[in-house]
Amino acid sequence: MQKPSIVKGTRDFSPEEMAKRNYIFDTIREVYKLFGYKQIETPAMESLSTLMGKYGEEGDKLLFKILNSGDYLSGISEDELLAKNSNRLTTKISEKGLRYDLTVPFARYVVMHRNEITFPFKRYQIQPVWRADRPQKGRYREFFQCDADVVGSDSLINEVELIQIIEEVFKRLNIRVCIKINNRKILSGIAEIIGEPEKIVDITVAIDKLDKIGLEKVNEELQSKGISSEAIEKLQPIILLEGDNTSKLETLKKSLSASEIGLKGVEEIEFILNKIKLLNVGAEVELDLTLARGLNYYTGAIIEVKALDVQIGSITGGGRYDNLTGIFGLPDVSGVGISFGADRIFDVLNQLELYPEDSTTSTKVLFVNFGSAEEDYILPIIAKFRQNGIAAEIYPEAAKMKKQMSYADSNKIPYVIIVGEDEMRNQKVTLKNMHSGDQQLLSVDECLRLDL
Amino acid sequence: MQKPSIVKGTRDFSPEEMAKRNYIFDTIREVYKLFGYKQIETPAMESLSTLMGKYGEEGDKLLFKILNSGDYLSGISEDELLAKNSNRLTTKISEKGLRYDLTVPFARYVVMHRNEITFPFKRYQIQPVWRADRPQKGRYREFFQCDADVVGSDSLINEVELIQIIEEVFKRLNIRVCIKINNRKILSGIAEIIGEPEKIVDITVAIDKLDKIGLEKVNEELQSKGISSEAIEKLQPIILLEGDNTSKLETLKKSLSASEIGLKGVEEIEFILNKIKLLNVGAEVELDLTLARGLNYYTGAIIEVKALDVQIGSITGGGRYDNLTGIFGLPDVSGVGISFGADRIFDVLNQLELYPEDSTTSTKVLFVNFGSAEEDYILPIIAKFRQNGIAAEIYPEAAKMKKQMSYADSNKIPYVIIVGEDEMRNQKVTLKNMHSGDQQLLSVDECLRLDL
Repeated sequence: MQKPSIVKGTRDFSPEEMAKRNYIFDTIREVYKLFGYKQIETPAMESLSTLMGKYGEEGDKLLFKILNSGDYLSGISEDELLAKNSNRLTTKISEKGLRYDLTVPFARYVVMHRNEITFPFKRYQIQPVWRADRPQKGRYREFFQCDADVVGSDSLINEVELIQIIEEVFKRLNIRVCIKINNRKILSGIAEIIGEPEKIVDITVAIDKLDKIGLEKVNEELQSKGISSEAIEKLQPIILLEGDNTSKLETLKKSLSASEIGLKGVEEIEFILNKIKLLNVGAEVELDLTLARGLNYYTGAIIEVKALDVQIGSITGGGRYDNLTGIFGLPDVSGVGISFGADRIFDVLNQLELYPEDSTTSTKVLFVNFGSAEEDYILPIIAKFRQNGIAAEIYPEAAKMKKQMSYADSNKIPYVIIVGEDEMRNQKVTLKNMHSGDQQLLSVDECLRLDL
Repeated sequence: MQKPSIVKGTRDFSPEEMAKRNYIFDTIREVYKLFGYKQIETPAMESLSTLMGKYGEEGDKLLFKILNSGDYLSGISEDELLAKNSNRLTTKISEKGLRYDLTVPFARYVVMHRNEITFPFKRYQIQPVWRADRPQKGRYREFFQCDADVVGSDSLINEVELIQIIEEVFKRLNIRVCIKINNRKILSGIAEIIGEPEKIVDITVAIDKLDKIGLEKVNEELQSKGISSEAIEKLQPIILLEGDNTSKLETLKKSLSASEIGLKGVEEIEFILNKIKLLNVGAEVELDLTLARGLNYYTGAIIEVKALDVQIGSITGGGRYDNLTGIFGLPDVSGVGISFGADRIFDVLNQLELYPEDSTTSTKVLFVNFGSAEEDYILPIIAKFRQNGIAAEIYPEAAKMKKQMSYADSNKIPYVIIVGEDEMRNQKVTLKNMHSGDQQLLSVDECLRLDL
């Protein structure tokens, strides 16, 4: 006998959790489809040559690596073994790893299928990914990503539509959000005008603290990072950027007037905001210069979504990148994409109790089982219920009534049908509403007409 | 630059394949739900202690094993390394493996969650599994299983419902099938009356050849397997078993009259067939004694499904097992389940071209893009289409008309909407049916009323 356990950092999803997760995934999927995105899936395993070097040194360590099959030690020399260098030996005994995100497999997919793909290619992908991170609250070794990307189109219409998608998904989920946008080109412009291009992360981090620590401390921090007084001086209007998006853009246009790339960024943001206005997008969309997510990766728009009613990190993010597939030999493919954080959205919905009541109901009607004669009477009736699209079960044994009712209870089955001798004689069934406790004697057709 | 490749034996699923696969999975899922089965998911990785020893020696070899993270060599002695025994070293440097099927993870799940589960527990699970098999046509290293099982109930009603599920799934998929059933207890009964319990597999294999090689050769084969003339004599009525299920059962009742377990098997089959008749199950259900699938595993019903119009192995299988969770310390949990072979069903549907036309349509309408002014006119109209549940796209750039039309073509988009200066002036759109080539000038509301 063996006491079973689950791998640390991974999760079983029980029926109720599955129902809730499906509610989230189905919502996202439906909206992606409405916007013309098409689903693909890639294998869980990729060649380590595809994965390694794509996520930085830390990422390489966090890849789950799969041991080669068979006698994997046979070609290894004694010297190599005795060196006891785990990293080096890995390259000899492991060729495959589990996917770490959906972006690199997508890039590989685009390159390998480029002759079948009609560009622009709008794809979505909802699959688990694996990271050998230290497990902690809210961080798992297996978790799901829900990505949508367009590749092969520079048009900012794509950015606009991704923002519409975000708005629509959270409207359907009933989560109030603020959609924050920024543009890498504006950040490059700022770096350009102050002459400190490599300090751009330090600058955004410092600006982000304005509310908490005040202007003086922000300037001190900038100074401590080695930014010149002259540069800090130039930064003042940008640090103090305030008001609505329009006034922020006006200030930026002035501050960035000497930077071509900076002005290009402002223009891109303006285009997006104008279309958003034209489309009456309901969610708040806010220009936020402190968004520096994926800075060494994104080349244009940067998008992040915050839930307004729950304290939690960003629940969706994305942006534009200009060279997704270059590493695999297909240059000049620009892309823009977003990724919904399913686990955090799950937490938000749980905290705010926003699941629609029927999202966790599965079986609608349980037929109580009193024995052999009743079974023969009931089974064809159940078949009729199912033909009418009603999920129905018969309790498989003639167990005690109490046990059968408690089965209905714990499975949250809203209706129970009871058929005994009386009902059989009168060609009826007794329908019990488990919520109100009401019982009705009805014919099968009357029952079906109730639209349970 | 690096030429990307995919791991041998695994597959990318492109949008059209995904649409077809979703059609299969959605159909199975919907029917499972209609019968009161609830979805669970388990992690891709399980402890090797959970997986090893459950699939025989060959199965242990076919498990994908995951290298421990970090400096996995640090605790290994030089002697252990120099032994170059791959199998033994694996136990030191790998603790996790990828799931090999959905059954063992389900057994682990049931044991670990037994206090939250209300039995009988009807669960379904649709997830990929991984096996380090040599890849060949139709055999993959990553493939999907679609299992449904009830545990904690001995009732044969469960077997009846699983057969109903099989019938309903294939009716919806339009695949004509024969559902073959057998019962392990009948096979045990046969072994008992001829006194050769360990020869039962040889016997079923020989019986299976009757059509091909004739009675004489079958008897020769039995003799060559060391079965006594006396036993072969007793086997004759069973080898020659013919006619409909009723007459087969009559013959078996006589032949097995001295075997209690054999008669129990006959009784179980009779119960199932009677209920199937009562329920007017449309598919052919046939008693077939040569079914010996999973013989060292199943203890009661054995089920297998053959497609009638395509030459291919079994496309669904299942049966009853009596001790699923015993190995994890929870004895006496009986279960019965089935598994749809998604990859073979995919092949059958492809060969017979049975996909409904709309199952591979995603976007319904493409809006042609003529430039900035038209974009501003079109974008709010597209939003309206989407609000009405119509999947719609705008071509993101004002590319050449030919390019945009060919995008619609290759994405199988059935309608294109064209808006130029004329349409804008008259507050109309031109709707083009890509199939017929017809064009109509319509208002947006007229368009929406067409139910595209």
